[in-house]
Amino acid sequence: MRILGISGSLRRGSYNTALLRAAAAELPPGAALVAFEHLGVVPPYCEDEDGGAGPAGAARLRDAIAFADAVLIATPEYNAFLPGQLKNALDWASRPFPANALRGKPVSVIGASTGIFGAVWAQAEVRKVLDASGARVLPDELPVGQAHDAFAADGSLDDPRLRALLAAQVAGLVEAVRAAQDVGSAAG
Amino acid sequence: MRILGISGSLRRGSYNTALLRAAAAELPPGAALVAFEHLGVVPPYCEDEDGGAGPAGAARLRDAIAFADAVLIATPEYNAFLPGQLKNALDWASRPFPANALRGKPVSVIGASTGIFGAVWAQAEVRKVLDASGARVLPDELPVGQAHDAFAADGSLDDPRLRALLAAQVAGLVEAVRAAQDVGSAAG
Repeated sequence: MRILGISGSLRRGSYNTALLRAAAAELPPGAALVAFEHLGVVPPYCEDEDGGAGPAGAARLRDAIAFADAVLIATPEYNAFLPGQLKNALDWASRPFPANALRGKPVSVIGASTGIFGAVWAQAEVRKVLDASGARVLPDELPVGQAHDAFAADGSLDDPRLRALLAAQVAGLVEAVRAAQDVGSAAG
Repeated sequence: MRILGISGSLRRGSYNTALLRAAAAELPPGAALVAFEHLGVVPPYCEDEDGGAGPAGAARLRDAIAFADAVLIATPEYNAFLPGQLKNALDWASRPFPANALRGKPVSVIGASTGIFGAVWAQAEVRKVLDASGARVLPDELPVGQAHDAFAADGSLDDPRLRALLAAQVAGLVEAVRAAQDVGSAAG
């Protein structure tokens, strides 16, 4: 099982990228998290350029989503909203509607911020955008606040409650993929 | 008086760019709208690159805002939210906080969409982001729905009610600049 991890932050020492690594460590055998490393080269969404596969940066994102069984997005929060570049990527991923790469794809959203609320608004916005795109959005959220103090030396979350929530959220995503595959097998 | 117009759409035939032109036609003598033509080259926001003037695309945006007396933003709505590239631009414009180019700057927001709601959610989000950035955000909104049918041959809005609202909103922005200048003169 291949889970695409998208960090909404481009910062080298990003807490959200760290959170994706912590999530990867909670995956069961047979499932792997593959990081999307090209968020920074996704171009600004422009309908004029949106034909066929689209620009290279958009095509790469769409392919990465299409090749994955599920997507896990970790988002920071800038000015009380999701980051512009993450929204931009989701706008490309949502097209062509309704036959886009996100359609019916299980997606879960987590987030970290240095404030106390752990990017819960940005997470809710990302879920809403995904929902508008036709993804199968899991309702969970993981608010990692004060992210500069949230990680242990081994990269795991320090707070046992948050760590359990992350493990449960990752398990839920894996379960959603298996349920979808079972339906596929039964239909086939 | 110099008003910077920012269209949130990069499409060549953009209805929001057309809406800015319609707004410019409502300006009183002595005020001019200058379009920001470089939204497409504003880079994705990244804190690692945000020192001093920032990357060229971000510096150009910040300078354009700093040189303007006010800003008028016209936004479309993608997937029920403001466009990613517009949010990205606002994220750059909001830094360094609190001494950013938007601080105390009168800003008004209008919007057009081909649906019936006229991008009212995107407009509300843009106002909220601007508010978080310390701009002096005017509360008005202008919902131009079914934008493909909204413009007359001369570029004005067909609907007299919407046209009057646009004129009033532009007049309010001009008034906000004059009020701020009067306060400045009185203080000086």
